Amino acid sequence: MIKKIGVFTSGGDAPGMNACIRAVVRTAIYHNIEVVGIMRGYEGMINGEFIHLETESVANIIQRGGTILKTARSKDFMTPEGRKKAYDQLKANGIDAIVAIGGNGTFTGAAVFEKEYGIPAIGIPGTIDNDLLGTDFTIGFDTAINTVVDAVDAIRDTAESHDRLFLVEVMGRDSGQIAMASGIGSGAEAILMPEVKGDAEELFERLAKGTRKKSSKIVIVAEGDEAGGAFGLAERVKERFPNYDTRVSVLGHIQRGGSPTCHDRMLASQLGFTAVEALLQGKKGAMVGIINQEVVYTPFSEAIKDTSSKLNPNVLRMIEILSS
Amino acid sequence: MIKKIGVFTSGGDAPGMNACIRAVVRTAIYHNIEVVGIMRGYEGMINGEFIHLETESVANIIQRGGTILKTARSKDFMTPEGRKKAYDQLKANGIDAIVAIGGNGTFTGAAVFEKEYGIPAIGIPGTIDNDLLGTDFTIGFDTAINTVVDAVDAIRDTAESHDRLFLVEVMGRDSGQIAMASGIGSGAEAILMPEVKGDAEELFERLAKGTRKKSSKIVIVAEGDEAGGAFGLAERVKERFPNYDTRVSVLGHIQRGGSPTCHDRMLASQLGFTAVEALLQGKKGAMVGIINQEVVYTPFSEAIKDTSSKLNPNVLRMIEILSS
Amino acid sequence: MIKKIGVFTSGGDAPGMNACIRAVVRTAIYHNIEVVGIMRGYEGMINGEFIHLETESVANIIQRGGTILKTARSKDFMTPEGRKKAYDQLKANGIDAIVAIGGNGTFTGAAVFEKEYGIPAIGIPGTIDNDLLGTDFTIGFDTAINTVVDAVDAIRDTAESHDRLFLVEVMGRDSGQIAMASGIGSGAEAILMPEVKGDAEELFERLAKGTRKKSSKIVIVAEGDEAGGAFGLAERVKERFPNYDTRVSVLGHIQRGGSPTCHDRMLASQLGFTAVEALLQGKKGAMVGIINQEVVYTPFSEAIKDTSSKLNPNVLRMIEILSS
Amino acid sequence: MIKKIGVFTSGGDAPGMNACIRAVVRTAIYHNIEVVGIMRGYEGMINGEFIHLETESVANIIQRGGTILKTARSKDFMTPEGRKKAYDQLKANGIDAIVAIGGNGTFTGAAVFEKEYGIPAIGIPGTIDNDLLGTDFTIGFDTAINTVVDAVDAIRDTAESHDRLFLVEVMGRDSGQIAMASGIGSGAEAILMPEVKGDAEELFERLAKGTRKKSSKIVIVAEGDEAGGAFGLAERVKERFPNYDTRVSVLGHIQRGGSPTCHDRMLASQLGFTAVEALLQGKKGAMVGIINQEVVYTPFSEAIKDTSSKLNPNVLRMIEILSS
Repeated sequence: MIKKIGVFTSGGDAPGMNACIRAVVRTAIYHNIEVVGIMRGYEGMINGEFIHLETESVANIIQRGGTILKTARSKDFMTPEGRKKAYDQLKANGIDAIVAIGGNGTFTGAAVFEKEYGIPAIGIPGTIDNDLLGTDFTIGFDTAINTVVDAVDAIRDTAESHDRLFLVEVMGRDSGQIAMASGIGSGAEAILMPEVKGDAEELFERLAKGTRKKSSKIVIVAEGDEAGGAFGLAERVKERFPNYDTRVSVLGHIQRGGSPTCHDRMLASQLGFTAVEALLQGKKGAMVGIINQEVVYTPFSEAIKDTSSKLNPNVLRMIEILSS
Repeated sequence: MIKKIGVFTSGGDAPGMNACIRAVVRTAIYHNIEVVGIMRGYEGMINGEFIHLETESVANIIQRGGTILKTARSKDFMTPEGRKKAYDQLKANGIDAIVAIGGNGTFTGAAVFEKEYGIPAIGIPGTIDNDLLGTDFTIGFDTAINTVVDAVDAIRDTAESHDRLFLVEVMGRDSGQIAMASGIGSGAEAILMPEVKGDAEELFERLAKGTRKKSSKIVIVAEGDEAGGAFGLAERVKERFPNYDTRVSVLGHIQRGGSPTCHDRMLASQLGFTAVEALLQGKKGAMVGIINQEVVYTPFSEAIKDTSSKLNPNVLRMIEILSS
Repeated sequence: MIKKIGVFTSGGDAPGMNACIRAVVRTAIYHNIEVVGIMRGYEGMINGEFIHLETESVANIIQRGGTILKTARSKDFMTPEGRKKAYDQLKANGIDAIVAIGGNGTFTGAAVFEKEYGIPAIGIPGTIDNDLLGTDFTIGFDTAINTVVDAVDAIRDTAESHDRLFLVEVMGRDSGQIAMASGIGSGAEAILMPEVKGDAEELFERLAKGTRKKSSKIVIVAEGDEAGGAFGLAERVKERFPNYDTRVSVLGHIQRGGSPTCHDRMLASQLGFTAVEALLQGKKGAMVGIINQEVVYTPFSEAIKDTSSKLNPNVLRMIEILSS
Repeated sequence: MIKKIGVFTSGGDAPGMNACIRAVVRTAIYHNIEVVGIMRGYEGMINGEFIHLETESVANIIQRGGTILKTARSKDFMTPEGRKKAYDQLKANGIDAIVAIGGNGTFTGAAVFEKEYGIPAIGIPGTIDNDLLGTDFTIGFDTAINTVVDAVDAIRDTAESHDRLFLVEVMGRDSGQIAMASGIGSGAEAILMPEVKGDAEELFERLAKGTRKKSSKIVIVAEGDEAGGAFGLAERVKERFPNYDTRVSVLGHIQRGGSPTCHDRMLASQLGFTAVEALLQGKKGAMVGIINQEVVYTPFSEAIKDTSSKLNPNVLRMIEILSS
């Protein structure tokens, strides 16, 4: 029977992680389970950086960006020796089960660890990238796309005033999820995503057809697009369309921060709450997610598979029509 | 065959209505359909306040709150004479079909009108209240709950500094949708909704049990709660718990305004886009919505039915546990 | 020689108080002075609620609304017995001097206390009301007026959509400072302030002259205006101008919260920094302020005098011209 | 006697320009002066891109970023031929006087033009850079520093979660005004400005002294700092302090956009209002500014001089103490 749960955040931080930690802690305490915060993800697990958490420890954090448990990427945990140390630390501290909040790397680690040592683990999708199967949305995604949309609204002010073409780079090394959502939301004239091949050429065609009217244009580019991000694209645009006043804006790390949106706080609360109850019901080895408003459990190995299927082709057609 | 569409907004305004108008206009033009904006809802339809809309007319409005077509409630349209006039105006202007963006009252009117005069109509759920069947979310709801959460974050600053009990009233005459979502998102200690009977008594019990520790509390109250909104509740709280420093904040009309969130802009774009294509495919007499990420058509008469079923009882249990 | 300073916040909380506490603490530590936080203002001074503060204690608080030292109004401190207790507590804890962050009431108390017991005190103007002499701006004022302007921007969305007349009540029991600044900033059609007599009648005249065109209007009303705040005014407007669709919005406590603006953080930093150095230079019995970018010291008794002189009559003329 | 005024925005756009245009237009109309908007600055003046402006033309723009008159930099206006054309256009359209909203380049052009053709001109400082003499603040500066502070608050979330050193580049090719204000406001650990030589070395010393505790640091770098902006600095930091997890964030064009703050709207309103009245009183050849809350006129040639004197050395000392 589970008496003590360890919770940690790992990989890139995402707004809503604190709301999730709060839910895990309070649900566990409600069920008379002790909760320990593991600092800095797997790194802190190996080093035994554990802190005791109470109801009060997580008061007034639901609105905070970042993660009070901090986060890191751990090379040591990729080695059998590192995982052995981590296991020993958990045992020595009486931790029976873990809740892992993070993304791809986090769940890859959790899967191997559970296989080797059998400590029950439930994963929670916490990443701004929305690049996991087994959940409609990951924690932090909604905040990130709103941050992008706010930034593009500001950029459009200046683009309009100068009749400029702006290439705005957003996060997404392998996934166009942020690009697509924020592109629709900001009324972008085009959206370039890693999953779509030849989208730069398509943009060039549209620019070529368009007689250069005096008016601004916004193009959203995912950092992982084959065009080479916004700077790579800008070079080619400037060469072929010297009459455009082309500018680049790389939004960068502001996309990870800020107070989470209501949606992310609700999602984080629900997933944290559910993860603890799932562990108590004997579930393990899976990520908990919400699909079509229902709780779903997906084995770690499935959750981290290729997510290009998450892009809806109908939406791509809509984008083209609306940005006319 | 449809050659000219009229689009209007009606009832209370909601953030995202402009994004929706933009999508309707551009999708229609893409399909070589003419689009006319009908000002002030049914009132303008009766008075023939029509404006021609082009692609450029809806440029740079996706981020704007309110509605460029303005909105109103029309008493005249509730009379057969009023509707006759409205029909004559549409005919005289060659309008073959209408897209109605609004809520309960809007669709009630659309249903009667279509029955009487047979002009095809597609409705789009645009109301901050999220009190319609046939769609997971209405346009404006996501923005409204984020506005509330931001306001409560600010109120919590001052509540914490003074160890106060704040009763925050949010919109929702018949529906607790805004109260519930924003209550979870703001980590409220309790949420009072019209759909839940006896929730004030439950709150009193919890306050009575709790030894008055020095610490702040936030209670979210829907305006339509049987307790009589925040002021009604405050009277009873002050009488029974004079040791609390109790304050009331009625958020009011700020909940309707502001730039729409990314989610509301996406939803509005998709529904506006779909509504026009639905009309072209011969659909009518229905509201278009999104349920579980799929487009769904719901007859007007169904869409406006009682929505108390939209409250998830599991979520109520979670709220109690997390607010401990 | 001063070895230990006590710092506290008192009266209504204001955004920027935490930035000020941070500056006091770090400046004191830089000068090898110990710093003690006195919780809940004079109340905590009487009860000996003291906490030791380090550089780390004030890390990451510059952006937070409210006050980590909490605040309260103290009846006990108005009595000689209360002040005696407070003095004994300070003595017992070796506190040689105090920094008092607050407004009118705070400085009234500090003046009496210093006179009776001779403990050096420097005051810092921390109140959203900007109703103190001896400083151009008080800490929190800039944040408050931006909060109001953001709220009115949102309200204007809905006012425009419905062609409504909105009466928006802002804080200011005796002072029109918030009303005037936010009224200009939000492009209000009229601004009603306690310092200006007969302003309601003036508004009525303008409404009477104006043929009722379909268009929205925003009127900002200070809560202390003789018209009886927004509700009082609304009654009279509705009676005399029934053709207007008149609505009331009382912004309330959101005006006290939220993350401080850059200006308030800078002002708070500079005043906290200066207050400590002033104490070390032997200054006391005065509030530190900034007038025309210069540090100024004003005796407590002067600082709390009538501030209606702070209203600039030229600005009133401008408002009328611009709101045409 | 002046009968018709032309108003334009020129150079980089700045939030608050629209509020300023609104004030110019309404004040002119109040005085029965006609107002013409000149599109795209001097470029539009040369090309005769003039639009008639009414009270209604500037309704509901006080809150909008950018400039409805658009802006550009004009090479043609630097030639005598260009200025001749511009003069002819003004004459042909009966424009007797101009209000020029912009920065250095704008006023350089205005000074030459006035000398050559004698058309009365009043300048208004509209630039986010705050790099003009003759005014405490330029229009847009307050908004820009708040945008930076918001962004750094978000970046600090992620910096804290990962214990990173962030080098954040802000605008300011020749001026550290934005860097300094936003650096204080965001509680940055160091601020690098073009006006201060050797500041990179100072930073290195502090980093060298500090034993690398696990904790985040934020350094604000003006783009024009001798270190070569944030990327230039990062190279040197990474070389000398490989144990830091160093990241770069270039905020870029978001600093120009967004809804203006209350302060910028008030400043813009007052300056626009004053500029028109100044022209009517026969003033010309000068920029209007506010110093210590008083209106001040500064000849164009003075306003554009070196502004490094605007950096307050006492503030630099404070920054070092508070960032300890």
